Amino acid sequence: MKKIKLCYIGGGSKMWARVFMSDLAIQEFFDGELALYDIDIKAAKRNQKIGNYINENPKTKSKFDYVVYEKLEDALKNSDFVVISILPGTFEEMRSDVHTPEKYGIYQSVGDTVGPGGVLRAMRTVPIYENFASAIKKICPDAWVINLTNPMTILTKTLYDVFPEIKAFGCCHEVFHTEQLFCRMLKELRGIDGLTRKDLSVDVAGINHFTWISKAYYKDMNLMPLINEFIAKYGKDGYYEEGNDIYAFKHDPFAYGNNVKFDLYERYGILAAAGDRHLAEFCQNSWYLKNPEMVKKYHFNLTTVDYRINDQKEKIKDTILMSEGKKEFEVIKSQEELVDLIAAILGFKEIISNVNLPNVGQVYGLPLGSVVETNAIFTNNLVKPVCQTKLPLNVLNLVNRNALNIETCYEGIKKRNLDIIFSSFINQPLCSNLTIEEGKKLFKEMCYNTKDYLKDFFNLDEYFK
Amino acid sequence: MKKIKLCYIGGGSKMWARVFMSDLAIQEFFDGELALYDIDIKAAKRNQKIGNYINENPKTKSKFDYVVYEKLEDALKNSDFVVISILPGTFEEMRSDVHTPEKYGIYQSVGDTVGPGGVLRAMRTVPIYENFASAIKKICPDAWVINLTNPMTILTKTLYDVFPEIKAFGCCHEVFHTEQLFCRMLKELRGIDGLTRKDLSVDVAGINHFTWISKAYYKDMNLMPLINEFIAKYGKDGYYEEGNDIYAFKHDPFAYGNNVKFDLYERYGILAAAGDRHLAEFCQNSWYLKNPEMVKKYHFNLTTVDYRINDQKEKIKDTILMSEGKKEFEVIKSQEELVDLIAAILGFKEIISNVNLPNVGQVYGLPLGSVVETNAIFTNNLVKPVCQTKLPLNVLNLVNRNALNIETCYEGIKKRNLDIIFSSFINQPLCSNLTIEEGKKLFKEMCYNTKDYLKDFFNLDEYFK
Amino acid sequence: MKKIKLCYIGGGSKMWARVFMSDLAIQEFFDGELALYDIDIKAAKRNQKIGNYINENPKTKSKFDYVVYEKLEDALKNSDFVVISILPGTFEEMRSDVHTPEKYGIYQSVGDTVGPGGVLRAMRTVPIYENFASAIKKICPDAWVINLTNPMTILTKTLYDVFPEIKAFGCCHEVFHTEQLFCRMLKELRGIDGLTRKDLSVDVAGINHFTWISKAYYKDMNLMPLINEFIAKYGKDGYYEEGNDIYAFKHDPFAYGNNVKFDLYERYGILAAAGDRHLAEFCQNSWYLKNPEMVKKYHFNLTTVDYRINDQKEKIKDTILMSEGKKEFEVIKSQEELVDLIAAILGFKEIISNVNLPNVGQVYGLPLGSVVETNAIFTNNLVKPVCQTKLPLNVLNLVNRNALNIETCYEGIKKRNLDIIFSSFINQPLCSNLTIEEGKKLFKEMCYNTKDYLKDFFNLDEYFK
Amino acid sequence: MKKIKLCYIGGGSKMWARVFMSDLAIQEFFDGELALYDIDIKAAKRNQKIGNYINENPKTKSKFDYVVYEKLEDALKNSDFVVISILPGTFEEMRSDVHTPEKYGIYQSVGDTVGPGGVLRAMRTVPIYENFASAIKKICPDAWVINLTNPMTILTKTLYDVFPEIKAFGCCHEVFHTEQLFCRMLKELRGIDGLTRKDLSVDVAGINHFTWISKAYYKDMNLMPLINEFIAKYGKDGYYEEGNDIYAFKHDPFAYGNNVKFDLYERYGILAAAGDRHLAEFCQNSWYLKNPEMVKKYHFNLTTVDYRINDQKEKIKDTILMSEGKKEFEVIKSQEELVDLIAAILGFKEIISNVNLPNVGQVYGLPLGSVVETNAIFTNNLVKPVCQTKLPLNVLNLVNRNALNIETCYEGIKKRNLDIIFSSFINQPLCSNLTIEEGKKLFKEMCYNTKDYLKDFFNLDEYFK
Repeated sequence: MKKIKLCYIGGGSKMWARVFMSDLAIQEFFDGELALYDIDIKAAKRNQKIGNYINENPKTKSKFDYVVYEKLEDALKNSDFVVISILPGTFEEMRSDVHTPEKYGIYQSVGDTVGPGGVLRAMRTVPIYENFASAIKKICPDAWVINLTNPMTILTKTLYDVFPEIKAFGCCHEVFHTEQLFCRMLKELRGIDGLTRKDLSVDVAGINHFTWISKAYYKDMNLMPLINEFIAKYGKDGYYEEGNDIYAFKHDPFAYGNNVKFDLYERYGILAAAGDRHLAEFCQNSWYLKNPEMVKKYHFNLTTVDYRINDQKEKIKDTILMSEGKKEFEVIKSQEELVDLIAAILGFKEIISNVNLPNVGQVYGLPLGSVVETNAIFTNNLVKPVCQTKLPLNVLNLVNRNALNIETCYEGIKKRNLDIIFSSFINQPLCSNLTIEEGKKLFKEMCYNTKDYLKDFFNLDEYFK
Repeated sequence: MKKIKLCYIGGGSKMWARVFMSDLAIQEFFDGELALYDIDIKAAKRNQKIGNYINENPKTKSKFDYVVYEKLEDALKNSDFVVISILPGTFEEMRSDVHTPEKYGIYQSVGDTVGPGGVLRAMRTVPIYENFASAIKKICPDAWVINLTNPMTILTKTLYDVFPEIKAFGCCHEVFHTEQLFCRMLKELRGIDGLTRKDLSVDVAGINHFTWISKAYYKDMNLMPLINEFIAKYGKDGYYEEGNDIYAFKHDPFAYGNNVKFDLYERYGILAAAGDRHLAEFCQNSWYLKNPEMVKKYHFNLTTVDYRINDQKEKIKDTILMSEGKKEFEVIKSQEELVDLIAAILGFKEIISNVNLPNVGQVYGLPLGSVVETNAIFTNNLVKPVCQTKLPLNVLNLVNRNALNIETCYEGIKKRNLDIIFSSFINQPLCSNLTIEEGKKLFKEMCYNTKDYLKDFFNLDEYFK
Repeated sequence: MKKIKLCYIGGGSKMWARVFMSDLAIQEFFDGELALYDIDIKAAKRNQKIGNYINENPKTKSKFDYVVYEKLEDALKNSDFVVISILPGTFEEMRSDVHTPEKYGIYQSVGDTVGPGGVLRAMRTVPIYENFASAIKKICPDAWVINLTNPMTILTKTLYDVFPEIKAFGCCHEVFHTEQLFCRMLKELRGIDGLTRKDLSVDVAGINHFTWISKAYYKDMNLMPLINEFIAKYGKDGYYEEGNDIYAFKHDPFAYGNNVKFDLYERYGILAAAGDRHLAEFCQNSWYLKNPEMVKKYHFNLTTVDYRINDQKEKIKDTILMSEGKKEFEVIKSQEELVDLIAAILGFKEIISNVNLPNVGQVYGLPLGSVVETNAIFTNNLVKPVCQTKLPLNVLNLVNRNALNIETCYEGIKKRNLDIIFSSFINQPLCSNLTIEEGKKLFKEMCYNTKDYLKDFFNLDEYFK
Repeated sequence: MKKIKLCYIGGGSKMWARVFMSDLAIQEFFDGELALYDIDIKAAKRNQKIGNYINENPKTKSKFDYVVYEKLEDALKNSDFVVISILPGTFEEMRSDVHTPEKYGIYQSVGDTVGPGGVLRAMRTVPIYENFASAIKKICPDAWVINLTNPMTILTKTLYDVFPEIKAFGCCHEVFHTEQLFCRMLKELRGIDGLTRKDLSVDVAGINHFTWISKAYYKDMNLMPLINEFIAKYGKDGYYEEGNDIYAFKHDPFAYGNNVKFDLYERYGILAAAGDRHLAEFCQNSWYLKNPEMVKKYHFNLTTVDYRINDQKEKIKDTILMSEGKKEFEVIKSQEELVDLIAAILGFKEIISNVNLPNVGQVYGLPLGSVVETNAIFTNNLVKPVCQTKLPLNVLNLVNRNALNIETCYEGIKKRNLDIIFSSFINQPLCSNLTIEEGKKLFKEMCYNTKDYLKDFFNLDEYFK
């Protein structure tokens, strides 16, 4: 078995870490060390214990050394792969990101990618990533770096801007759901059952959480015409990913009926490929997020931070029990693809999946060098983006506005220039309803709400005096 | 004197024609024929009579044959220059363009360039221009074609798309006012009096009515730093172009205090170079056009179509009197530059001024082939755009959104595809407040209000059924 | 089994047809009809008979209807795939292409891609392809079109230029050999045996027969450093693909010792990925083709047309015997990949292999729209080029000169403009030694030598008067 | 009068300095200090004395302080303009540049721009310019920097690469001669006399010494058709710039009959706009420089370095006499344009002339960032390149090959990497006849011949061991 060292920054994760460790354990291609690094060292140590239990599990095929490091540099040393998945700030900062704008009539279904919440989260996280990129450049420049943190686009950009030779890419599974939706269509409309996303091929282009599928095939069957049929049949009440409980959105804050996606398809002719909660945030707020009633009408939800906090508490409780051996959990292959991608890069498979990388030509019309999401080939130490079909002009316009907002936001953060950041903030589609005065007020309020994480990088008092 | 034939499409103009004829008369470089063509043949004949009076005026140095043609083809035949300046539809259509959106909370200060009014006006005018371009291709392919009609960008695009080898350009004097504003600054702040725009040099880039000056010099003096001083001194009450009557905007619907320009400058660091009434329409309506109160606050006006109708009546009255020899008018050099540009193209001068042309590289970041506005050199049968300083990312984003909206609108009109046109309509910054449902309703209403000019090109009933 | 119709233009092939039919027979994914079309209808009928024998062969898993058509339109009708593999003109024309330039000191190792021979061959073949593209557009616009004919680049360009929506791509196996060379290196230098090109991944970019590998991995092992070792060990005498008979080049006109490749690697640092006979023709002739002695020194050969004629005679003899049932041949999977690619497009596999397609961004630095060769994904009705590593500037310069020569040549042929074609001819690297006068003389001589195939398209007498 | 400080690097010039000082004296827009800096301090002091004589001349309108500095930093301090015009190395190095390649059958008519001589000259000069750029960045970052030294393209590139914000441009008068040739055509063919290049307008694009005019007008008269007439009338014997002494090329080593230009025009349809001695060096040597006989046939000359040495001796003698007041010289406006350009930048005029600047879009098809030559506007502290007509593909190919050779050469010198430099050397069109072995031998010989100026930057012994 191939020996490698994996470094996991954010290794104190409450949930995703044990999924990852299970996936590592269940495969047979490689083993070695999993270096856990987290500013919450206790949490990292709990995951270490869980890892050790996994090693004892009979289903485990690859045992790893689970090692907790206190210093980033030590964790990175000799790493072949670095996985970064962190929460910038606490849920209290996220509460401000998501809910402060509501006072100004801005509702966010997620609040971590674009919109006012996305900008503030970027302001907290980009400086941290600047530091990661510098450390990787110094300590393990040849390592593959896999970013899982949101906001995906700007953070992947940060890694490449600080260290242009970095072998980094961003992973996100949002596109998977839309591919699975095509599988559902094949089942519901054509009676073809048992397919997975791997049986289909799509042309997908855009930026993370706002990608668009312009071609989709199952063998030589064009899947695009199925969408109209599907909307005719299910569009009214919405179609839910798992089961078709049309009331799902009433109790599950992550559920959505795909009506945003369907509306965009009917207007633009190609299929937006992310969850509706994400898609809505890239559009001006009068379209899908004008108010909670409109959100309901489109069959999706505003996920509250209170919900996340309670959910997190449950996960921590579980983690503690598991780390103390008081609660069992199954060592089982998850739906996640990360371990497969690592195996592919090590040369054990060839995978075609979506990826976030700087644009070198794979998406026509978006700026070269901006981070875009498309398919890529993962294989033998290479991750190569695939050229995609040109986006229609009207869709390109929607995507490009957000892409340039993100580039602007990055420029502002890099230069520690709040004027430039504000120009990105006020131009967010979700801020369409704000007067400039309101925009300035809201920006100030959000900055001060999260100042503990900003003050080292931005001179708030001087700017807002 | 050089003999040429000028064809004037829209030669029944109520006001601009006699200004043009005066300018022609007062110069000494060329004479020949001015072919007047208009669907309102009476109006063209009135201008012919005025032209004949001009020929008798002692100040006239170049006498032209003023000839009215009933057929476009005859008017174009053997033309060296074709000037196009038309009103697409009547003021009744414009009334719908400008005022119907008010029911939906959309206020337009002009309504002929972008926003809902700009889209509808484009729908009426592009098919007419397709016809002009075809006729020019057939009858006088070597003529220089000068477009003066709004919406400038999409109409110049139409000319080039139908006949790529056309020698066409679009002229607009909006940038002049901002250049003159710099002259005012030099006077007010530095005591340098008597300068005209020709004494300065600017780098100006963008699209018509939404251009931006990123560099401005008088000799080796950088003029950009003057703007802050000027805002500090005059920004509160607004600064008016002609005189500094701070109440001008209360009675003159075209007056504005430059506060939109100043606000944009303070936020973006470069100077928007068009009248505030135009600039505001390229921004989301919450910025400057949320409601009439906000418009007042920013010291500009919503020009009503009633005002235009009354104004037009006065002009027609004048024209009739003049054509009947009952009212005199002075033969005098106007502020317009068109005759100078023609003289330059004929090789009598070298002029550097702004122009609308397809992007061949003069504006970095905007799509190649889209029509952009920059400086150009006019001389010896050549009109050559000048490469401009790169726009800052945040400004590029504002401009590009509008540029791609216009490209989308053109694609929709060209294909007679109302879905694509609507995608441009709903994405207009001025439509930011509309829900999709409202957007569709407004679009339908505006189409039907102006259906007499649309029905030959678009199948409204089928689309809106 | 999936039923399809395949149309084979050039279906009277003397050798490749039966290889293709065997490959079709041996697979189990699809069957249907193979439409054979050829201007040599007798040859097509012989292949039909061979096809029928194949159907009786016990190893055959998929039986096809082998149908000969006299009219192209009938052959194309209802086709799902169109394979084009023709010989433009006869070997007498090729004799002129290859050997006439020798009088002027120009030696060509192949003579069908670039150089004077390539230009003349393009002049004969492009008009034929214009006709194919028009017919496909009319008869079977949705068919996949696979071009196998040389000159690959310009012919694939022709298909797309005449019918931009065509689903065409060009296939060539030259890159395979270089991939196999890496397998040899792994065996010879690292003792890793049994690998095939499918076990490796490469980044390959350029134009057909002049592609360059800038990255190559087997699992996480970087293969590029092996090249220096390999050259040190084998470079002196040359290394031959099959076996290492260092005298191979003395008797096999297709053999080569890779010394051109090695020399380019030592000078440019990346690996040219085609046979040396091809590579040499893209470089100025003083480098590798100054005279036959130099060719020997670099361990490759000038393939004579006499050799091809004799070889062809043998093949025809064989074909006749086989078609009459007098000679057996094995139904066996060949090294060719075409049938696999078809299966992949039909959705039965996912293949990553090299392909010739218009540049939409996959090769940075070469003109958009020019036909380039890179890797692509073949799967589920999609063929998608993969973005490749940027070529070093010095290599880009060599490739771009040839790419622009081909674009120029295409422009000239399209416009039937011999001046433009000559400007491509005289700028061929292989024509570096010609004075302009000599160039004109040689061009004229070659045109007249092959005039039977040119006179319908070019007015030679007027041009050369 | 405007007070400025001009720094003249290379201020010990034997001839050009006094022309420049005369031009400065004769104008009335500005005066101040001319800082003379030269490694040959005696020569600088002689020019200072000449300057002082000029100040006493009654024709002098603007008196300057002529100051000699020993340190570059002192000379640069507070400079508003920096003019750089140096001779890298001595004529002994130039002798090797020009004549060593003759042993290998490479004849150079100039030897300072491209070809083997151009590469070696670049190797000597680029490191010196790196130093100038760093000093300017540190001492006078806001100064305008005007480069007059060859090789123009690579040196201007150096300035921008080391200090991207530099306000630098390169000036060359080669294009002027071709513009004057049009004036001659107008006189000879149309009887229009008395015109200067300023009366015409041209579209000119390319790289220094290899620019191409694709449009030319005098008023609305298209001048391109005149070229054929002119060739028909004068082409046989050549047409000489000054007078039409068809034997000029026999005694004047700088004279040429324009036959290279005419031949290129007949083959490419647009007019190459530099002296034939320069143009020939950008083409493969079999075209115009195969041997001295061919050079004669095309009516131009190989300028020997002996000639330059003798000429230089005369100039130095003159300079000494003038500096000692023993020889008079006239204070008179020269044909040079530099002082006018400075006046224009200071805002006293508006000039349209050609310029060398990094490509920001002014030349379609050449790499962005490579230094190109086009028209530009000089005015009010701005130098703005003008977008030019697209070059035909076949011409673009010739230009681009040289542009990428220069970019490659620069990359190699910047990285002190002789392998990369050699890849540019061997790919020079003038080196087309060299085998690789010969190329390496020649390169080595030329490097060692000029090693005194290379050894500080390149490790020759290690590379050539």
